Amino acid sequence: MAAVEASLPPLFDKIEELSSDFVARLSKAVSIPSVSADFTLRPKVVEMSKFLEKELKALGATVELRELGKQEGADIDLPPIVLARYGTDPNKRNILVYGHYDVQPALVEDGWNTDPFKLIEKDGKLYGRGSTDDKGPVIGWINAIEAHQKAGVEFPVNLVMCFEGMEEYGSDGLDDLIRAEKDKFFKGVDATCICDNYWLGTTHPALTYGIRGCSYYALTISGPAADLHSGVFGGMVSEPLIDLTHMLSKLVSPQGKILIPGVMDLVAPLTAEEDEIYDKIKYSMQDLYDATGSKTNLYETKKESLMARWRYPTLSLHGIEGAFSAPGAKTVIPAKVVGKFSLRTVPDITPRALDELVFKYINDCWAELGSKNKMEITLLHDGMWWLSSPKHWNFEAAKKATKAVWNVEPDLTREGGSIPVTLTFEEELKRNVLLLPMGRGDDGAHSINEKLDLVNYINGIKTLSAYLHYASVEPTA
Amino acid sequence: MAAVEASLPPLFDKIEELSSDFVARLSKAVSIPSVSADFTLRPKVVEMSKFLEKELKALGATVELRELGKQEGADIDLPPIVLARYGTDPNKRNILVYGHYDVQPALVEDGWNTDPFKLIEKDGKLYGRGSTDDKGPVIGWINAIEAHQKAGVEFPVNLVMCFEGMEEYGSDGLDDLIRAEKDKFFKGVDATCICDNYWLGTTHPALTYGIRGCSYYALTISGPAADLHSGVFGGMVSEPLIDLTHMLSKLVSPQGKILIPGVMDLVAPLTAEEDEIYDKIKYSMQDLYDATGSKTNLYETKKESLMARWRYPTLSLHGIEGAFSAPGAKTVIPAKVVGKFSLRTVPDITPRALDELVFKYINDCWAELGSKNKMEITLLHDGMWWLSSPKHWNFEAAKKATKAVWNVEPDLTREGGSIPVTLTFEEELKRNVLLLPMGRGDDGAHSINEKLDLVNYINGIKTLSAYLHYASVEPTA
Repeated sequence: MAAVEASLPPLFDKIEELSSDFVARLSKAVSIPSVSADFTLRPKVVEMSKFLEKELKALGATVELRELGKQEGADIDLPPIVLARYGTDPNKRNILVYGHYDVQPALVEDGWNTDPFKLIEKDGKLYGRGSTDDKGPVIGWINAIEAHQKAGVEFPVNLVMCFEGMEEYGSDGLDDLIRAEKDKFFKGVDATCICDNYWLGTTHPALTYGIRGCSYYALTISGPAADLHSGVFGGMVSEPLIDLTHMLSKLVSPQGKILIPGVMDLVAPLTAEEDEIYDKIKYSMQDLYDATGSKTNLYETKKESLMARWRYPTLSLHGIEGAFSAPGAKTVIPAKVVGKFSLRTVPDITPRALDELVFKYINDCWAELGSKNKMEITLLHDGMWWLSSPKHWNFEAAKKATKAVWNVEPDLTREGGSIPVTLTFEEELKRNVLLLPMGRGDDGAHSINEKLDLVNYINGIKTLSAYLHYASVEPTA
Repeated sequence: MAAVEASLPPLFDKIEELSSDFVARLSKAVSIPSVSADFTLRPKVVEMSKFLEKELKALGATVELRELGKQEGADIDLPPIVLARYGTDPNKRNILVYGHYDVQPALVEDGWNTDPFKLIEKDGKLYGRGSTDDKGPVIGWINAIEAHQKAGVEFPVNLVMCFEGMEEYGSDGLDDLIRAEKDKFFKGVDATCICDNYWLGTTHPALTYGIRGCSYYALTISGPAADLHSGVFGGMVSEPLIDLTHMLSKLVSPQGKILIPGVMDLVAPLTAEEDEIYDKIKYSMQDLYDATGSKTNLYETKKESLMARWRYPTLSLHGIEGAFSAPGAKTVIPAKVVGKFSLRTVPDITPRALDELVFKYINDCWAELGSKNKMEITLLHDGMWWLSSPKHWNFEAAKKATKAVWNVEPDLTREGGSIPVTLTFEEELKRNVLLLPMGRGDDGAHSINEKLDLVNYINGIKTLSAYLHYASVEPTA
């Protein structure tokens, strides 16, 4: 541990010294619009993988751009997964790091103040699509390698890297690759670190040890063969959209209470140990007001709010497909409408048990409605919740790294949203997974004017580097 | 009346003789894609007005293309209104006819079997955009003039024509023109005939004496400042879309019952006279099944279905703006959603009385919901219902014309949808308005593969001609 303590100061100094280079590298990455959801930009996603390959090879890493074939249901090639390795010393731990180099769509017309694909530094913030999600962290690992080389500090671990290009569009092909490579490329991994989430608030670093699952459903109601004119047919026929609003209103109350019987019975009871942790978290109701730009909180206290986000299931309505959705007025009776809703799941809800409750309740409600239309309920996708132990050596290493850089103990948080690859890595590699966020809770990852604070970027590179040093020596017990 | 009876046979023979010329004229009109909603096609809308001017002038009519200035909210000129007159004999009645020369958008990709802007004759049907809505009828009036000339039959009335080019996009400028010209161009009009609707079914001619009004509302619910991620914020905040589904579900039952108190109390009671007419109408439940491609009827009898369409108000839900509406799954909590709904209104509901009931009920429901979000209810537009007397001489003339051509008594129908210009003409000119449909209920006016049956086109020209003859002599009492 003393060796670690000696290595960090020169490394941190070098990271500060190289900070404008590191911003320039991120700037190059942001300038490539690697939007995975936009097929016309698929060549840019591929270009981004080649940019990473070039940067990594220049630093001496071995890199493979693993092709995955066609995208499911589309006549277009998936972008490759970047599989890279830096170091092969059998006496060092193998730390797997994951990130993604694709980004969410972004158009100036959406309301950006600046060109989303040009990194702009203003008031200590780096604005640009992908700055925080997830190019900052991915480039952060590369910067960490360069900083070691230029500071003359030995790299403490073998770094196993997996950077995908489809995270924002379903991670097509990733799970299959992890399963196929668990005893090959991923063989010997001692622990995993995923840098793709955020601090809970805006001031205090965090480590994340739990995420909710998600079961996403589509409720389809159809009636007439085609859309009808409401003047001509209104009053004569049963309207699918009327049925749908009735059905959706039976799922959840305006106060957030899930109305599907049995769901809350599946939730693991609150232990005294867990009950204590919420008070310690650096979070306030003001943080929630700031993050949502409103006072539309369902609960009045920090503790209840965090429990609602982390340890209880919730049901959200997302929208309706097939109805009139443009501005203005259209006198249409939509022929077929699809309501989209999802439940965030927590221990001990299993997807199949939840499906059973949802399907039964929907069918019961439908029977009660007495409509001549047709109804179908389908599961669009699901992902399991994940809960880790924050006392594992992998977490201990990250706690020490955080303390060394930020001089505080990190909050131990859970995420409301899902990062499905977390569970895949843990289940397939049978090794602990740590979520180590770089950005802040207000970064606007999927929103307009996405940003990464410069201090989070530079201190983030220090934290990633320090984490690897502590992870290299942390005892397993 | 004997003179009329003598005039019609040679006129009808001439119309049969000229039928291929008349199809050719309609073909020319259909080949001009005068889509008023598509700004890039605006020159084609103007071209269509010039085509009508040329055809009318060649037959000796006086024609003015009345310019209307810029379109509201757009930097583009409105197409002119064609104001034409054929005949100025002070001893003849002045009959005003209205139609429109613009059409709905149409693309082969929408599912047309043929080029929508090429008139195709197949199995006795004339396929093409505008064939029935409303180029067939507009060209029909021109054909009627030509037929008289070629048959050597004196034209029985002074024909005052008003053909607009913006009907499918809000009739911008039309109401203002009617008001401005009521004592000028429209001075002396004795009755109006609008040929821009359809038979109720597919076999029996109809005259239309009533239309429902429409009041269209937007219910806006907003909460957070921007869309939120349902994983991160689901369960912590009040969701506008959840509130909206609850609110919309309180407006109308799946069985079509309006749940807003007081609306049904405004409906004029059913008279014994009205009660009798429904049984006579040539319409069956099978017609409704065919038209909707389903058996999603709310009522089991023809009479109840027609009353629901013609004489009772209905409430339809059209859609939601601001929520996720694309295919697939998106885990968003929409920040601001706008529910669109409208009521079709009937005697004696006035728009202001309805607004009062709607606003009060919505506000009451909202208070009961107990949400921290913001709610706003607004009227987007309204149009008054119209009910005429089918015993007026204008209707009597059309009944006789129908009998002379089709050898049946026309159904006396009402329309569920609105044709706002009907009310404007009646209110401004203080003269009876008749709706005299040319096409059938299955013509697909705003749909793909729009058609006009050849027999409806040719017999329609005969009916329009015969109507003018009967209208010229029909006693006013």
